[in-house]
Amino acid sequence: MSEAIDYNKLLTKGEFELRLRNIGETRYHNLHPFHKLLHGGKLNKGQVQAWALNRYYYQCSIPIKDSVVMSRMKDPELRRIWRKRIIDHDGESEDTGGIERWYKLTDGLGLDREYVKSTDGILSTTRFAVDAYVNFVKEKSLLESITSSLTELFAPGIHKERISGMLENYDFINDDIMAYFKKRLSQAPDDAKYVLDYALEHAKTRQEQEDVCNALTFKTQVLWSMLDALHFSYHDPGIIPPGAFKPKE
Amino acid sequence: MSEAIDYNKLLTKGEFELRLRNIGETRYHNLHPFHKLLHGGKLNKGQVQAWALNRYYYQCSIPIKDSVVMSRMKDPELRRIWRKRIIDHDGESEDTGGIERWYKLTDGLGLDREYVKSTDGILSTTRFAVDAYVNFVKEKSLLESITSSLTELFAPGIHKERISGMLENYDFINDDIMAYFKKRLSQAPDDAKYVLDYALEHAKTRQEQEDVCNALTFKTQVLWSMLDALHFSYHDPGIIPPGAFKPKE
Repeated sequence: MSEAIDYNKLLTKGEFELRLRNIGETRYHNLHPFHKLLHGGKLNKGQVQAWALNRYYYQCSIPIKDSVVMSRMKDPELRRIWRKRIIDHDGESEDTGGIERWYKLTDGLGLDREYVKSTDGILSTTRFAVDAYVNFVKEKSLLESITSSLTELFAPGIHKERISGMLENYDFINDDIMAYFKKRLSQAPDDAKYVLDYALEHAKTRQEQEDVCNALTFKTQVLWSMLDALHFSYHDPGIIPPGAFKPKE
Repeated sequence: MSEAIDYNKLLTKGEFELRLRNIGETRYHNLHPFHKLLHGGKLNKGQVQAWALNRYYYQCSIPIKDSVVMSRMKDPELRRIWRKRIIDHDGESEDTGGIERWYKLTDGLGLDREYVKSTDGILSTTRFAVDAYVNFVKEKSLLESITSSLTELFAPGIHKERISGMLENYDFINDDIMAYFKKRLSQAPDDAKYVLDYALEHAKTRQEQEDVCNALTFKTQVLWSMLDALHFSYHDPGIIPPGAFKPKE
């Protein structure tokens, strides 16, 4: 698939950043046909419910993933910076934070909150992909664990497209329901900038540079796999696995 | 999805076995449309290659999974019995064993053996599902780790159907290529009988009986998820993720 790598040849910071941006441009899930359908108003309410229900498992696992990452940091300064991510998702109190804002979405779509929380109806592929992400940050180096978040570099574009596309194209979507994504527009860029700078600074050998590229690629695969499963189960051909959520419409 | 469970009410061995067999009858991957296509001669050679290539990652991970299970057994007698599974897959020498027989299949299908071994071209969903299985036996109780193999109860049926269906329907399949499955016809039933007896004997509370049911359900989800991904990527709608195997035909 790829040509042989010369591990003696360190990439310049410019070359390294270009490699990372190229991975995003060729593998980030904004390219997935399911997102084009979602943002373009081509799905019905039941299909949007399936997406929000499955994506909830990702959302509620992110602070768990970040707790694992933080548990591997020996430097208090680094943990203080990383802690922001957990606060962003868990909030300072019960009714703030990203997970709470995700419930605004699932509530607005008419899904029962206890059913969403149970994760009983999610696709197994969603569970396996998200769990793979949590296991990745347990098993890989701290550099790889941190830089698997580099997908955030590409998030603002997809969030902007999602907010405007979904507001315009679905009569069951309104401003309040989209609160999660609007908040992320201001949160994600700072996080992404920090991780990119960290990668450029801390990958000091070609092997480490390649490890970072692979960590980002891995993370794009997690996101892509989740959409493959949604597309297959709820759109085309639309074969729902035994036990998974069945939309009413 | 399911009604409330009375954890004070132990199932009789007969009821418990019926529950397990019912999980197989409603969730085992012989029911997946991709297998109906595979066995019915409805796939082309490239699609059969994609199936064998992806399934290889499952095959080569099974002895790793079984080594984890064995590492958790305190009883030498139990380890001696379980060891047979590793021997079945790894062989007594280089050119015997189930993994070697799997290469007969991928060789016969015209896949480069080094490419198969690298697992570079497999679907991410395959990797996440199989890795979830290995992690399951690391993290769950020994009872659950052992009984997640209960899918073997249902394997002889699918293997017989596969052997006759594939020999009859594809001109690129012959007896030698199907050696893996023919061998499994004699290996799997003994293993399955042992694990069923183990489950009936060692699940002594209703909670443990439910745990065994969930372990079997989990394993059916691993197998099902792999076929969802193959079906989506190589058949309908046939959208291959970035970086995955692209058949020549």
